Amino acid sequence: MRKLSVALAERSYPILIGRGLLARGELVADAVRTPQVAIVTNDVVAPLYLDAFVCALEARGLQCVSIVLPDGEAHKNWQTLNIIFDGLLSHRCDRSSTLIALGGGVVGDMTGFAAATYQRGIDFIQVPTTLLAQVDSSVGGKTAVNHPLGKNMIGAFHQPRLVLADTDTLCTLPDRELKAGLAEVIKYGLIRDADYFDWLEASIAALLAREPDALAEAIERSCASKARIVAEDETERGVRALLNLGHTFGHAIEAGMGYGVWLHGEAVAAGMAMAATLSMRLGWMPEDQCQRAIALIARAGLPTVGPAMGAARYLELMAHDKKVEAGRLRLVLLRAIGDAEIFSDVPTTEIAAAIDACCAA
Amino acid sequence: MRKLSVALAERSYPILIGRGLLARGELVADAVRTPQVAIVTNDVVAPLYLDAFVCALEARGLQCVSIVLPDGEAHKNWQTLNIIFDGLLSHRCDRSSTLIALGGGVVGDMTGFAAATYQRGIDFIQVPTTLLAQVDSSVGGKTAVNHPLGKNMIGAFHQPRLVLADTDTLCTLPDRELKAGLAEVIKYGLIRDADYFDWLEASIAALLAREPDALAEAIERSCASKARIVAEDETERGVRALLNLGHTFGHAIEAGMGYGVWLHGEAVAAGMAMAATLSMRLGWMPEDQCQRAIALIARAGLPTVGPAMGAARYLELMAHDKKVEAGRLRLVLLRAIGDAEIFSDVPTTEIAAAIDACCAA
Repeated sequence: MRKLSVALAERSYPILIGRGLLARGELVADAVRTPQVAIVTNDVVAPLYLDAFVCALEARGLQCVSIVLPDGEAHKNWQTLNIIFDGLLSHRCDRSSTLIALGGGVVGDMTGFAAATYQRGIDFIQVPTTLLAQVDSSVGGKTAVNHPLGKNMIGAFHQPRLVLADTDTLCTLPDRELKAGLAEVIKYGLIRDADYFDWLEASIAALLAREPDALAEAIERSCASKARIVAEDETERGVRALLNLGHTFGHAIEAGMGYGVWLHGEAVAAGMAMAATLSMRLGWMPEDQCQRAIALIARAGLPTVGPAMGAARYLELMAHDKKVEAGRLRLVLLRAIGDAEIFSDVPTTEIAAAIDACCAA
Repeated sequence: MRKLSVALAERSYPILIGRGLLARGELVADAVRTPQVAIVTNDVVAPLYLDAFVCALEARGLQCVSIVLPDGEAHKNWQTLNIIFDGLLSHRCDRSSTLIALGGGVVGDMTGFAAATYQRGIDFIQVPTTLLAQVDSSVGGKTAVNHPLGKNMIGAFHQPRLVLADTDTLCTLPDRELKAGLAEVIKYGLIRDADYFDWLEASIAALLAREPDALAEAIERSCASKARIVAEDETERGVRALLNLGHTFGHAIEAGMGYGVWLHGEAVAAGMAMAATLSMRLGWMPEDQCQRAIALIARAGLPTVGPAMGAARYLELMAHDKKVEAGRLRLVLLRAIGDAEIFSDVPTTEIAAAIDACCAA
């Protein structure tokens, strides 16, 4: 088992990564300070892992209730959030309950937001079961639901007490979701770690073949990178915004196509290709590095072009992104592989041209 | 103008109390650190105060947008919250916007919760226009919406940057709402301040007659009491729970009768009578003090008996209250006037008997 820590003073917490961790109820029990836990999962994950997980927790003396949501980004909304609240209230869960998110990024984000707001805030734990959630969304305390006009528009910062990443759960992950997770993995290499990007170029075939050592290494390095950034900037006043590389374009794709049509990681992949292309067109990133970035995204089986919605529609949707401040769009762009930077003065015509260059005909 | 402060380190903020403050745009402008403000109000307050308030703010260079909600506790829910989010998004409000709540407790609680969760948290300011909001709900950062099964069940702690209480707005307050505000005023005397209770006994006629000096004195003393308690215990781990005197019974009345049928202050008034009666029956409060408490509530024109829902229904609804911990109901009861205490071991039969003794036949 690999162990990392997110250093946030009294809100610090461990990230545990390894095989067979779901069966080790003591890992969760040690982090829980309430007699009751409520496990939130979805209808795809529940048949695979819920019963065994509940057994492991009950064996450690925890009272468990379960709440099963419909699967998918299309359900990351108020209505589904209310399923969690209704479940908590009907099970008489009070402030001495801990929420546990067992699933991917959607389950984690919604469960975290429910924990942030149920009775004005209760404890929660992340048990991510997808690569995307294990390398990215389960770490750092960002929680949210979508609004029809914008991704993750309603949310809160609420740190978990533990992140438990059982890499065995990746065995049952559909190929498409594995690849979507690799988008966020590549992101860490692009923004701050050229060595990690080199390693990913050498290891992408092993990752796609789900070689356990390669996956564990990628998860640990990604989490370590994210933990450092979150510890520096918990509420995204500065450096943390770099983690949004590709996300402003990607959120436009997700909202424009309808949530769930493109997976989040797929949209981020095309968005990173757009960000790299824009960076190159502006003369900020050398052309060969841009090509390497796009090539790795393609080798991961991810899209490097976005859907043909038209640049104007992209820009309209991007104007609703949280990265807008005082009406100015802030974009994460690249100086080089491993060197991302935030820009708020990019001409709209240049952004539109890069979108057009990276869209399906 | 009277000025108090809520001392919460980097989240400290002033409470300004006085006449004609809505017209003094500089008071708000000094507290705002964004170019844009979004004013949330309701369809009763808007015709009275919105235009003049907007003018005062625009004269100080602030860009203003307005969002008008339907009035009343019955609308303190998800659907109304979404009116705020839809308004913010359609006006392209981003993180560099400040929300301003112009209205009573419902507007303040919902606007505060919207500010706590819009784009994971933006600034907000409270401009309370009812006595209840000026003496209680606008101070302390509790924000929430109701769930059909429980009052304020979904919410967050999110402190305002300023509370601006213009006592002139009380001139247009309906009598019923003035009295409802007095319930929370009486609460402060009962829980920690016997001198204040004595003053209230002597001043209740002046308050009901809306004598400006008496109202300003009551608002200042109530806010000072609340500010001290909040500074001691921001997130209600301890002493702050005393502020819930009468509220567990009162929330049961509000939920059981349907939100908005009883005003919050009316339900709290009957709830305080129940708490005093229970305290006396348990031998914890002298009978004459219980009678004085109930007499002052009655002299304020407030109910001292609850609706005849049956004790069993009360207990069922109270079991959903946030004051339940690990399945045990925690009640604020009285040792004496000015001396409240939290109890978690009161026999259910005693609670039921006190409810029966304080319900309409």
